[in-house]
Amino acid sequence: MEKRDLKSLLFSFLIEKSFITIKMQGILSGEKVIVAGSEADTFESMGYGRKKGKSVKGEREYKLELSLEEAAFLLEAGRIVIRKEKGSELTLEDFLKHALGIYPNFGARYIVYKDLKERGYVVQPGGVDFWLYPRGTKPGAKTARYFIRILSEREFLSVKDVEAVLVLAHNMRKEPVIAVVDDESDITYYDVKEAKFDDVIEKRDEREDRKSEVSGKGKAFLLGDKVILWDTDLAANLYKNDFYGKLTNENRLLLSLVEAAYLIKKGLLELNFEQFVEHAATIESDFMGKYAVYEDLREKGLILKTGFKFGSHFRVYKATNQKHSRDLIHVLPEEHVFSMPELARAVRLAHGVKKRMIFSFKEQVGTESRIRYVDIGRMKL
Amino acid sequence: MEKRDLKSLLFSFLIEKSFITIKMQGILSGEKVIVAGSEADTFESMGYGRKKGKSVKGEREYKLELSLEEAAFLLEAGRIVIRKEKGSELTLEDFLKHALGIYPNFGARYIVYKDLKERGYVVQPGGVDFWLYPRGTKPGAKTARYFIRILSEREFLSVKDVEAVLVLAHNMRKEPVIAVVDDESDITYYDVKEAKFDDVIEKRDEREDRKSEVSGKGKAFLLGDKVILWDTDLAANLYKNDFYGKLTNENRLLLSLVEAAYLIKKGLLELNFEQFVEHAATIESDFMGKYAVYEDLREKGLILKTGFKFGSHFRVYKATNQKHSRDLIHVLPEEHVFSMPELARAVRLAHGVKKRMIFSFKEQVGTESRIRYVDIGRMKL
Repeated sequence: MEKRDLKSLLFSFLIEKSFITIKMQGILSGEKVIVAGSEADTFESMGYGRKKGKSVKGEREYKLELSLEEAAFLLEAGRIVIRKEKGSELTLEDFLKHALGIYPNFGARYIVYKDLKERGYVVQPGGVDFWLYPRGTKPGAKTARYFIRILSEREFLSVKDVEAVLVLAHNMRKEPVIAVVDDESDITYYDVKEAKFDDVIEKRDEREDRKSEVSGKGKAFLLGDKVILWDTDLAANLYKNDFYGKLTNENRLLLSLVEAAYLIKKGLLELNFEQFVEHAATIESDFMGKYAVYEDLREKGLILKTGFKFGSHFRVYKATNQKHSRDLIHVLPEEHVFSMPELARAVRLAHGVKKRMIFSFKEQVGTESRIRYVDIGRMKL
Repeated sequence: MEKRDLKSLLFSFLIEKSFITIKMQGILSGEKVIVAGSEADTFESMGYGRKKGKSVKGEREYKLELSLEEAAFLLEAGRIVIRKEKGSELTLEDFLKHALGIYPNFGARYIVYKDLKERGYVVQPGGVDFWLYPRGTKPGAKTARYFIRILSEREFLSVKDVEAVLVLAHNMRKEPVIAVVDDESDITYYDVKEAKFDDVIEKRDEREDRKSEVSGKGKAFLLGDKVILWDTDLAANLYKNDFYGKLTNENRLLLSLVEAAYLIKKGLLELNFEQFVEHAATIESDFMGKYAVYEDLREKGLILKTGFKFGSHFRVYKATNQKHSRDLIHVLPEEHVFSMPELARAVRLAHGVKKRMIFSFKEQVGTESRIRYVDIGRMKL
C-alpha cells in the first residue's frame, strides 16, 4: 500500500511537471467523465476526480469520476482523450458544447475552477457550486473550508439568496464565498459572514446615567425631513454626549428622522411616537426598515450617523470619542435584488475607507422577524 | 450718490460685524418679505433682497424684496422683525411653518442657503432653486456662474431631470450644481457637465493600419456570456495591440459580449452580427445600450474594459500604453432614476481611484437618438 502511494506520488509529480505525458481515456456520461484503468490512482492523487468502487465477479473494481470542469481542464492541457460511449474523440469545442447543455453557466464555472486550480487550490464539485480546500490539502484528508457560489458580472443575487447561503453555511459549518466572473474573465471573491458587534467600548447603561441629567422634554419642530430641537441645553447635551444631530451656530439641534423617532421613544422630545413614525414613513418609503436598524444598534450602544457620503444609510461608531466610523450599514428591503456591479461598488468603496460593508435586512423566523447583519468583504484567495 | 454708497457701505460693515444692530421691519407676503424704508439700501448692499421701484405721486419709491431664505436667515440672526399685514410679530417657528407651506423642501433650501451665505457666497433665489455668484461679488455687477438644484438625501433624480438640468445650463450659459442635504444636515455639492473625450493620444486610423496585418476571420465560439477566439495569432494580436479580451495560458482569447459584437462588426470574427447581437440581448437585458456606448467610444479611439471592480460598466483608457484608466462609465436606461446614495457611492468611488465618473444614456433629439456622456463630480465650494 505504501509502495503504491509512493509510486503514484512520483508519477503525479512527473506528470504535473510535464516530464512524462499520460493521456487518460475518459468516457463522457452526462455530468461526469468516467476513467477506468491504472491512471485513475495517479490523477486522483493529483486532486482530480473521486474514486468509486463496485464489485465485479467478487473483486472490487475502481473507476474515477471527473467533473466536467476537471475534464475540461485536463482536455485543454492535452492529458485526456474523451469519447462518448462508442463515439469518436471529442474536441474541446464539442466537449464545451456538451458541458454548456448541462450547466448554462459552465463558462463561469470553468473560469473559476481553472483560476483556483492553477493557483494551487484543491477544488471539488459540490456544495453550492464548488467545495474549496486550503492549498496543498488532499481532499478527504481534511474537510473543505469554503463553498463557492459562482456568478457572472451580469447576474443577480437576491436577499433571499444571501439568506439561503448563510443557512447553508451554518448547517454545513463552512464559510460561503461568492465568486464573480467579470467581463474581462477576472474573478473577484467575496466572503459573506454574519457581522458581529460585540466589542462596543462604552456600555449602554453608562450613557443612560448621563442622560438622566437631562430633565423634561425638549420642544421640537418638524422642518421637512429634519426635526429642530429648540431647547439649547438639551441640544448641546445630546450632541456632545451622544453625537445626535448637528448643532447649529445658534445652539439648536437639527435631527434626522430616525434620530428624532428614537429620542421621542426615549421620552426626550415633546412629540408623539406613533404619529411621528407614521408621518416619517410618508416622507421616506423605507423609514420603518431604517428605524428598526437604528434602534437595534443604538440599543447595543453603538452610534449611528448617516452614511450618505459613502453611499450607505448609516456609518457606525463604537463610541463618541472615535474619530473614524468602523462600519457602513445599508438597509435592504426583503425583496431587494443585488446587481453584481452594485455589490462591487459598495464593497470596494467601504474597503477604500477601511470600513466593513454591512447589509442589513429583516428575516422572518416563524412568526417572528429579526434583523440580520451581513458583512460582505473582498477576499484575497 | 457716491456719498450714499459710502455711508451704506460703512453701515453694512458695522452691521455685519455686529457693532451696531438694526432691525428691519418686514411684511410677509406669500413667498416674499417686503422691507420699506432706509435700511433697504444697507441690506441690499450686503447681498440680501432685490430692490423694486414704483412711482408714487410722481416720485419713485423703492422697496426691498427678500426671499423666504433670506428672511429666515435675518430672522434667526435677530436682524428683522416680520409681521403679516396688520398682524403681530412672527416667531421663527411661525415663519418656518409659513415657508414650509410654500416650499415643502424649505428645510433643505434654508440649510443650503445658510451654508453658502455663512461661507461668503452671494446667493440669490431663482434659476432652478438658487443662483450662485462667486465670493465677494455684488449681484447685478456680475452674472451668476452657477445655478443650484437642491435635493435631500432621500430624494430622487431621474435621467430626464439630468437632461433638463443640462438643457437649462446650456440655454442660460451657467454651470449646474446639485446640492444634496444629508441626514446630518451636511451638504455635498456635485457639478454636472458634459464629458469631453477630445484628448485621445492614439488616433483610430493608426490602429486601423495595424489591424490590416491580420487577414481572414477568426474562429469563435460562444461560451455562456463569453466568446472564445480559437485562432491563437489573431488572439495575441488583438490582445497585445488593442487590449481586447483576456489571453489564456493556451493563447486563446476570452472576449466579452460587447467586444465580440464589435469585432464581428469589424469583420474579424466568423459570426453573424445580427444573430449575435440578438442572442447577446437575451443574455444581458441592457446589452444594446452598453454596446452602443462601447462602439461609440471605440470609434473615438478609446479602449474600454469592464469597470466591474469599480461597480461600473466600463473603465476607459486613452491608449494601450496607459497604465491606469481615466474614466468610469456607467450606462443608464433612459427611464433610470438615481437615489442620492447611489449617486454619492458612484462618484465617491471614482474620485477615490482618481477617475471621472461618467454616466451615459440615450437621448431622443427629434427622430434621432444620440448618446450623452455626463460627468458628475464632487465640487469643493
